[in-house]
Amino acid sequence: MSSPNAVKVFGPATVANVSCGFDILGFALNEPGDLVIAQKTDKRGLTFECPQAESLGISVELEKNTATAPVISLMKALNPSKGVHLMLDKLMPVGSGLGSSAASAAAALVAVNSLFDSPLSREELVTFGVEAERVACGTGHADNIGPAIMGGFVLIRSTQPLDLVALPAPDKLHCTIVHPAITLETRDSRDVLKQNIQLKKAVTQWGNTAALVAALYRDDLELLGRSLQDVVVEPERSQILPGFAQAKSAAMDSGALGFGISGSGPSLFALSDSDSKAKAIASALRSVFDNLRLGCETYCSKINTLGARVIEEER
Amino acid sequence: MSSPNAVKVFGPATVANVSCGFDILGFALNEPGDLVIAQKTDKRGLTFECPQAESLGISVELEKNTATAPVISLMKALNPSKGVHLMLDKLMPVGSGLGSSAASAAAALVAVNSLFDSPLSREELVTFGVEAERVACGTGHADNIGPAIMGGFVLIRSTQPLDLVALPAPDKLHCTIVHPAITLETRDSRDVLKQNIQLKKAVTQWGNTAALVAALYRDDLELLGRSLQDVVVEPERSQILPGFAQAKSAAMDSGALGFGISGSGPSLFALSDSDSKAKAIASALRSVFDNLRLGCETYCSKINTLGARVIEEER
Repeated sequence: MSSPNAVKVFGPATVANVSCGFDILGFALNEPGDLVIAQKTDKRGLTFECPQAESLGISVELEKNTATAPVISLMKALNPSKGVHLMLDKLMPVGSGLGSSAASAAAALVAVNSLFDSPLSREELVTFGVEAERVACGTGHADNIGPAIMGGFVLIRSTQPLDLVALPAPDKLHCTIVHPAITLETRDSRDVLKQNIQLKKAVTQWGNTAALVAALYRDDLELLGRSLQDVVVEPERSQILPGFAQAKSAAMDSGALGFGISGSGPSLFALSDSDSKAKAIASALRSVFDNLRLGCETYCSKINTLGARVIEEER
Repeated sequence: MSSPNAVKVFGPATVANVSCGFDILGFALNEPGDLVIAQKTDKRGLTFECPQAESLGISVELEKNTATAPVISLMKALNPSKGVHLMLDKLMPVGSGLGSSAASAAAALVAVNSLFDSPLSREELVTFGVEAERVACGTGHADNIGPAIMGGFVLIRSTQPLDLVALPAPDKLHCTIVHPAITLETRDSRDVLKQNIQLKKAVTQWGNTAALVAALYRDDLELLGRSLQDVVVEPERSQILPGFAQAKSAAMDSGALGFGISGSGPSLFALSDSDSKAKAIASALRSVFDNLRLGCETYCSKINTLGARVIEEER
């Protein structure tokens, strides 16, 4: 069977900094996400278009765009005899705390890899994706790009060298996202963090992180709920997020197992054990931001265990 | 079947502060340990003897001895119509960093519970044991008493309220202990710790802690080895432990997966994947302390997955 001439790939939104798992844990969602169409071209090299680039203020320079920057390296590694044209359909909000740049990068990497019969593993693709994160925010975090490519919950034990651990995702687990209409700079939300923390709080945090991992393996959603506590980052960052306290109360009162900041915000996430609870939480969260006269988008999703995936192909 | 008239129980040594799992993770050993013989008496109440008490400087006052203090509370909870006489055969070194007081307490609690047909679960017994730790060192840690009673690896997500998670122990895992002839006070080794740590190091630590838990569930000893890194406590405490750096090098060169301080020292532990490696590590560690003209004891053991256990009973 010949390799495809064109593929369309969905790259999912992701929740990074999962509560106590600041900087080391992320998971993938079924929505929102970006789409990438990759087509083989006769002329070697990479070309690119993104219809929303101008309106969203996204660079289309290959080295600066988060979808194409990692593909440049991937193309060097694959060294194909054909070229590739990429079209990024940027459907996700930018600067939302939902891993928008990782979603584009994941879709682009999986698309180009698929076009040449997937010689690289998902984990190998992540190493290229970490480069894109460097383009987007100056540091090579992997807690968005890891789950965006691999799906499920991904633990980043280390970034140098990259050491990823795929964790199981309980089947009943549902995620509610609220993305309020607030603009934050990732750099700003890094700035509010103290460089030093109390040892006592750090111990509480790694006890919860360890228990959260155990809860995923045991499929123990009660333990997962007890573990979803962030005593280090959330107390600082939540102060620059209007409505955080009300949103957390509303989500917990609606049956959430846990609640926290997605990435560095402004999006917030809640985990629960059913679709109906996820929807009830979404409704409660919309009320909170309506009352604050802030617009918001909500999304309900199971954990996306597949990561970026080919949804159409042309042979 | 009537309940036993007397039981003999082995209470195991434990390794707490397992590397990156400072204050939240411990595991149990097959040796060394303490023995407790519990016998029913006609007169209600508790009596106690310990042949080694005078030579070891251990109190035999019921409220002050670490074996009897938790049993007082247990007897109140069980409210038996018979009394109990406890004999503690204190075989473990005291102040070794191997959970000596927890071993005695675990043996005593399991013995008395067994004498009355085990109405309480192992986890319930731990709550009584945490009291004994308060007697021993002023704070209610559970990372020795938890595994001493429950066996295996035990994660302490929280001490208030107590929230314990039993973790799987890979069958191939072996532990080597070296107990050098050095006297440390637990309070001293707490004093060397800084009250504040860098956020960056804390993130590294909770990434490793989370990965260590994943490694236990995946039975992945390579990941376990990569995760057994303590960037927070070991750099401070190792400075008051003569020979630490040489011992660590010797253990790693002899095939250890990881190496660290057991509890607050002076005992050190190495994990490896076979009995032969565990013994080779023990031999290498003895050489290190011989060269330093310090006496030492070594122990090789698989992970004790049963915890404190009845080894004889009389009906």
